Amino acid sequence: MPTLYVTRTVRFSAAHRLHNPEKSDAWNQETYGKCNSPNWHGHNYTLDVTVAGEPDPETGYVIDLSVLKQILEERVLSKVDHRNLNLDVDFMRGVQPSTENIAVAIWREVEGALPAGRLHAVRLRETENNVVEYRGE
Amino acid sequence: MPTLYVTRTVRFSAAHRLHNPEKSDAWNQETYGKCNSPNWHGHNYTLDVTVAGEPDPETGYVIDLSVLKQILEERVLSKVDHRNLNLDVDFMRGVQPSTENIAVAIWREVEGALPAGRLHAVRLRETENNVVEYRGE
Amino acid sequence: MPTLYVTRTVRFSAAHRLHNPEKSDAWNQETYGKCNSPNWHGHNYTLDVTVAGEPDPETGYVIDLSVLKQILEERVLSKVDHRNLNLDVDFMRGVQPSTENIAVAIWREVEGALPAGRLHAVRLRETENNVVEYRGE
Amino acid sequence: MPTLYVTRTVRFSAAHRLHNPEKSDAWNQETYGKCNSPNWHGHNYTLDVTVAGEPDPETGYVIDLSVLKQILEERVLSKVDHRNLNLDVDFMRGVQPSTENIAVAIWREVEGALPAGRLHAVRLRETENNVVEYRGE
Amino acid sequence: MPTLYVTRTVRFSAAHRLHNPEKSDAWNQETYGKCNSPNWHGHNYTLDVTVAGEPDPETGYVIDLSVLKQILEERVLSKVDHRNLNLDVDFMRGVQPSTENIAVAIWREVEGALPAGRLHAVRLRETENNVVEYRGE
Amino acid sequence: MPTLYVTRTVRFSAAHRLHNPEKSDAWNQETYGKCNSPNWHGHNYTLDVTVAGEPDPETGYVIDLSVLKQILEERVLSKVDHRNLNLDVDFMRGVQPSTENIAVAIWREVEGALPAGRLHAVRLRETENNVVEYRGE
Repeated sequence: MPTLYVTRTVRFSAAHRLHNPEKSDAWNQETYGKCNSPNWHGHNYTLDVTVAGEPDPETGYVIDLSVLKQILEERVLSKVDHRNLNLDVDFMRGVQPSTENIAVAIWREVEGALPAGRLHAVRLRETENNVVEYRGE
Repeated sequence: MPTLYVTRTVRFSAAHRLHNPEKSDAWNQETYGKCNSPNWHGHNYTLDVTVAGEPDPETGYVIDLSVLKQILEERVLSKVDHRNLNLDVDFMRGVQPSTENIAVAIWREVEGALPAGRLHAVRLRETENNVVEYRGE
Repeated sequence: MPTLYVTRTVRFSAAHRLHNPEKSDAWNQETYGKCNSPNWHGHNYTLDVTVAGEPDPETGYVIDLSVLKQILEERVLSKVDHRNLNLDVDFMRGVQPSTENIAVAIWREVEGALPAGRLHAVRLRETENNVVEYRGE
Repeated sequence: MPTLYVTRTVRFSAAHRLHNPEKSDAWNQETYGKCNSPNWHGHNYTLDVTVAGEPDPETGYVIDLSVLKQILEERVLSKVDHRNLNLDVDFMRGVQPSTENIAVAIWREVEGALPAGRLHAVRLRETENNVVEYRGE
Repeated sequence: MPTLYVTRTVRFSAAHRLHNPEKSDAWNQETYGKCNSPNWHGHNYTLDVTVAGEPDPETGYVIDLSVLKQILEERVLSKVDHRNLNLDVDFMRGVQPSTENIAVAIWREVEGALPAGRLHAVRLRETENNVVEYRGE
Repeated sequence: MPTLYVTRTVRFSAAHRLHNPEKSDAWNQETYGKCNSPNWHGHNYTLDVTVAGEPDPETGYVIDLSVLKQILEERVLSKVDHRNLNLDVDFMRGVQPSTENIAVAIWREVEGALPAGRLHAVRLRETENNVVEYRGE
């Protein structure tokens, strides 16, 4: 049986700020530059979630992508869309909201919820020029 | 002499919140929905600025687009990129930061600064599905 | 008061076939080529609907784009998405489903339903290389 | 010698319907939702075919991408473009036209036809939010 | 009868250099910057050609877009694709190849060749951030 | 500690020509077709550079992407943007400027310059339909 990699893309808009409270303001400014701007900024994030598996012979699907979309809406979008990633999101509590750390946190939210297939990759695009991928390694 | 419409695209990432302080919380929640979320959210905005005019016979340019880019960086991007549109931007003071109102405010920032041609349109994309255009009418 | 042009983009996937039943098969094959293929083909259509008007001073909106989206879902998407444009769509009955004719039909579905602003343009993209715009003229 | 992964993208527009004739109408409706719509629907598919290999020292090419394009036109596009994937395509006979199954079928059409390099991946995008990849595993 | 605006997009890749031979090297360097680089540079140009007209009642088309594509291939692409815009193109002889001037030249190549409708706009994109439109005014 | 793959995208516009001087004109014309056009042509190249590594616990970054951008500007863009890949670029001397060979050459320019993480992939897009990836294997 062949292995397929199926990806669903969803989008959310959120505010955040990169700031390490254990460090000085000078360190934060030097390290994060404009991403440390005190009154927040924000992005339209694009999230690609890839599930690997064999297609079910009865349906032809590895996983019904409308089910995957629903999982992403419940576990991720309902918590992050039009929110502040530093202040509003339970699964980001105490985590620096770099794209890297958000991607890992989303992996952990989604991994246990899949009814079929196995989570293969979470790819999070912050801007048209910056994207991060986590493969659970 | 032919009239040409030349457009330069630039991008910025900013936080904002839609909230009318003269109205009740219920009105704001009803009117703006998730855009009224208290701790801000944000977007990657795409800004297209169009200048109309005749090409200079010596250069072939209506306006040097690298000059237009510099004007947009000084007048717009340096003020809005990685900032909060409600709190940090002088030209948005007292203005509800709907995409419509931001587009009009940007027009006013840019209009007087052009060394050649005349400002024809400001188009501001908030998400891949929402875009607003202002033509100075 | 400034006039703004606000656009909402929605998408649908549909089957269709170009075939004029009053003409011979040879005429249809010659005129429409592969678009006349007997067992249908289909597209992911992208629909941009533009509304013109002045922003409401209380809200900053020409029209709430989530309301416009809802109108498009009720009047257009619920009828065309994952359907056959020749067979399934009330507002396309007896109309050749060229991109031109679909755009005009969508205009007529949407025009009377707007709670604010006036319909300015309907732009329908059939493929990445083909797009049609209707402005009600 | 370095190994390179070279990808050619082509596009086709096709109709299809997800329906398992061995199952009840209720099962099909429940399983496939609007993708089971009886009179077909369709998509603009985007197909990325990736070939891996070492560049030929005389040409600098792993494979001439215009040759790869020709192979894709003969083996795939001439059979699927502006066609019905359930009814018209020899290599889809008896196969449920889910994106997963189409990708595997395209792999099998292309694999033996490459004059250089080895087939590495077939990636088939059905909509801007759904994409499937097959790597021959 | 409604008026529709139908657009066909085509692409070409070409080399060029901005240099006014009647001016000094210093003027050229100052005016054009890196676009004056002596050994040429190049772009993937995207060309949108818009034709306005009423749909033919028999076909539903303003103009058959595959005919428009053929015209663009004969009149434009066969002359500019994979060529040097300063040296190789008859319709650019003696013309500074700024995006503005190329757009006007393409308008003149295409205008007289349309079998239906009237030429409405030529839009030429040089990079993802720079685009020029000519409307025959 | 999780491994993340972070990618920065940059763009450049360059001229080139595919021509093997050790071969006859007929061979070159047969092998390269229009890419052998004598007076050069050009492209807008898109370059994705991916770095793999563990996020720094203090910053949340695998590598500061603005630092990666600076490295790409110094080592790659300053040498290739608005230049001729056959004539102007030190790291392409004696190398056929196929997309494959440019990607390998860019890998070698960037690999030793990373202050954090390890180079994972260089992906170079020549047109919207052609892209090449090198992973250092």
